[in-house]
Amino acid sequence: MNAIRHTISLVSLGTFQLARRTKGQHVQGFLLGTGLGLASFSAVTYAHSAEAVNPKVKGTQLDKSRFMAEPITDSKSLLEDKDNMRHRMELLIMEIQAEFCRALEAEENCGQKFKVDRWEREEGGGGITCVLQDGDVFEKAGVNISVVTGSLPPAAVQQMRARGKNLKEGAALPFFASGVSAVIHPRNPHVPTIHFNYRYFEVETAKGEKQWWFGGGTDLTPYYLCEKDACHFHQTLKSACDEHDATYYPRFKKWCDDYFRIKHRNESRGIGGIFFDDIDSPNQEAAFGFVSSCARAVIPSYMPLVRKHKNREYGNNERQWQLLRRGRYVEFNLIYDRGTKFGLYTPGARYESILMSLPLHARWEYMHEPNSKSEEGKLMKVLKNPKEWV
Amino acid sequence: MNAIRHTISLVSLGTFQLARRTKGQHVQGFLLGTGLGLASFSAVTYAHSAEAVNPKVKGTQLDKSRFMAEPITDSKSLLEDKDNMRHRMELLIMEIQAEFCRALEAEENCGQKFKVDRWEREEGGGGITCVLQDGDVFEKAGVNISVVTGSLPPAAVQQMRARGKNLKEGAALPFFASGVSAVIHPRNPHVPTIHFNYRYFEVETAKGEKQWWFGGGTDLTPYYLCEKDACHFHQTLKSACDEHDATYYPRFKKWCDDYFRIKHRNESRGIGGIFFDDIDSPNQEAAFGFVSSCARAVIPSYMPLVRKHKNREYGNNERQWQLLRRGRYVEFNLIYDRGTKFGLYTPGARYESILMSLPLHARWEYMHEPNSKSEEGKLMKVLKNPKEWV
Repeated sequence: MNAIRHTISLVSLGTFQLARRTKGQHVQGFLLGTGLGLASFSAVTYAHSAEAVNPKVKGTQLDKSRFMAEPITDSKSLLEDKDNMRHRMELLIMEIQAEFCRALEAEENCGQKFKVDRWEREEGGGGITCVLQDGDVFEKAGVNISVVTGSLPPAAVQQMRARGKNLKEGAALPFFASGVSAVIHPRNPHVPTIHFNYRYFEVETAKGEKQWWFGGGTDLTPYYLCEKDACHFHQTLKSACDEHDATYYPRFKKWCDDYFRIKHRNESRGIGGIFFDDIDSPNQEAAFGFVSSCARAVIPSYMPLVRKHKNREYGNNERQWQLLRRGRYVEFNLIYDRGTKFGLYTPGARYESILMSLPLHARWEYMHEPNSKSEEGKLMKVLKNPKEWV
Repeated sequence: MNAIRHTISLVSLGTFQLARRTKGQHVQGFLLGTGLGLASFSAVTYAHSAEAVNPKVKGTQLDKSRFMAEPITDSKSLLEDKDNMRHRMELLIMEIQAEFCRALEAEENCGQKFKVDRWEREEGGGGITCVLQDGDVFEKAGVNISVVTGSLPPAAVQQMRARGKNLKEGAALPFFASGVSAVIHPRNPHVPTIHFNYRYFEVETAKGEKQWWFGGGTDLTPYYLCEKDACHFHQTLKSACDEHDATYYPRFKKWCDDYFRIKHRNESRGIGGIFFDDIDSPNQEAAFGFVSSCARAVIPSYMPLVRKHKNREYGNNERQWQLLRRGRYVEFNLIYDRGTKFGLYTPGARYESILMSLPLHARWEYMHEPNSKSEEGKLMKVLKNPKEWV
């Protein structure tokens, strides 16, 4: 395991996205302020070596071969306090990260690997940022986790109170946040872009008790519409939801359509998926189970689409259309995405992690409008009017 | 002159940029609301034909051969009331637009021409949007004018009062705004990108009198630093300023450096130029003279750089660096530029004109950092720490 580089002020996309979907703006602003900007970090870049992937596993030691790097919390604590939801979530997101990174690497025809940055945060916690760039299958792929603790300032507490949380007014309160997030931009225009983010949040209430909730979502951005793929993607998410609550999929599918809307163009970023926040019922075990199911549904929802299309032929037309749609992705992320905006306005934020969601290439043409009967026009129809896939 | 296309809800980048640099946010929001979003427009696309360029000029008729399309105000009014500042400004921006478009077209080796969209606004006024895309010298060039009238809602009036304008409280007041704006993205990485915008504003005061002011600026975004070019560019702007007031250049140079800062990266978009607003002294004649001098300085400040570098050889390295810097341009415009933000948040805004400032192509790499001793590193030094060029 080689420590290649030390950097200060590092924060992962994971941390940032922990905060991006909470409803209250001040809360987001704060979280980003706390999670991204206010502390300095020490970071280490790991070569993705055999040693890192396959450390020796002995007796009751943690099987680190499952992870992309050392966990943020020390292994002893993770093993000793297995029932602690913070630890369960950390292990879940570490696994999700590693499994997804390896699934993506396995599709690379020329063996391109993820670069792994592990960083620690002086105030508490840290993260692992994994990036694969310029692969032959994936043009840019980022998969990040973060596990951070800090103190919620009064303004953020006020905002949470407004959202119905029973928190003490006018005081800074301890919080904990962890999550995994990813944006994958493939090279072949027939392979869609995917984004997902799953997070867990804790804050101490007025009475010194703990309030907790989960948030997250997975959504797909195709460049060419394959209805069968769209149905498969949505059906996989729906099945994950239905295991837990039959009302989840329809509610969270609509929430996703509403959130990922490029308002000035009156079109959606992609064909949606699911999106939710503030999940704290029916109980912590069930909520964690639901989030786990959603996170575990990412690979089966997406990888079959990669395998199916990654070697399809395409020409300059398809590439230019993909780049135009990536321009729209940039518009959404820089103009509307709450986490990006608040993250970038936070002094000292780790902008490289925040902007890792941007594609390697994007294009803007004046007054481009595809023929409504073309394949591009077919996609535009469902982006203008989101439809039900399952 | 061929009417090719009719569109509703058209607004030019010119209109939008009229509002982009005013200090008060509500004022901007309103102007965009009024100028961009609230009315519907009828638009006509002109082929840039010989007839459009050289109509017959008879006796006291307006010499329309100087313009890209018919003026927004009818020729008779423009000719009859020559001393009216609205008319003088309209004639100035029409000339600036046409001269700049023709200067750019003259550099195209393969004869690429501007596409001209003339639009009218139901509430009053209109604009002319000129775009040259995919030329061999200019990858994307937009030059726009607009001349609009409307009514300032109370919130905007309130905002202007806060800026020291003596306006009646709680009432909607008539306003007039006109301006020219342009963003030019050349293909060769050795040719810099230029942006400029000059505008005139009138609003009726509490006593039914007229308050007026000018705003504007010109700034340069090179991909490779040529100190001689930077000095030439700034010296040309300084000379234009110095003709009018020796304090203008240093004040407006600093204002420009402050405005075009990509805050999350702590670097400037380019090497600056001049930027100003609220110019209403020493008198209207002098202020108009100053703005005219600045607008007429665009061609001599920029075209020599185009001619000098447009045929220089470059390789993939230079192209990729140019695309990365264009990504930064996109970041500035979508995240910080006030006009873009408020424009896009305005329902029904003409986003195609607002986003015309975006390059044809842009690129984002994770953790890209040029070697400090390379040519790219040399540029970064002055982007991190803006310097005095003259």
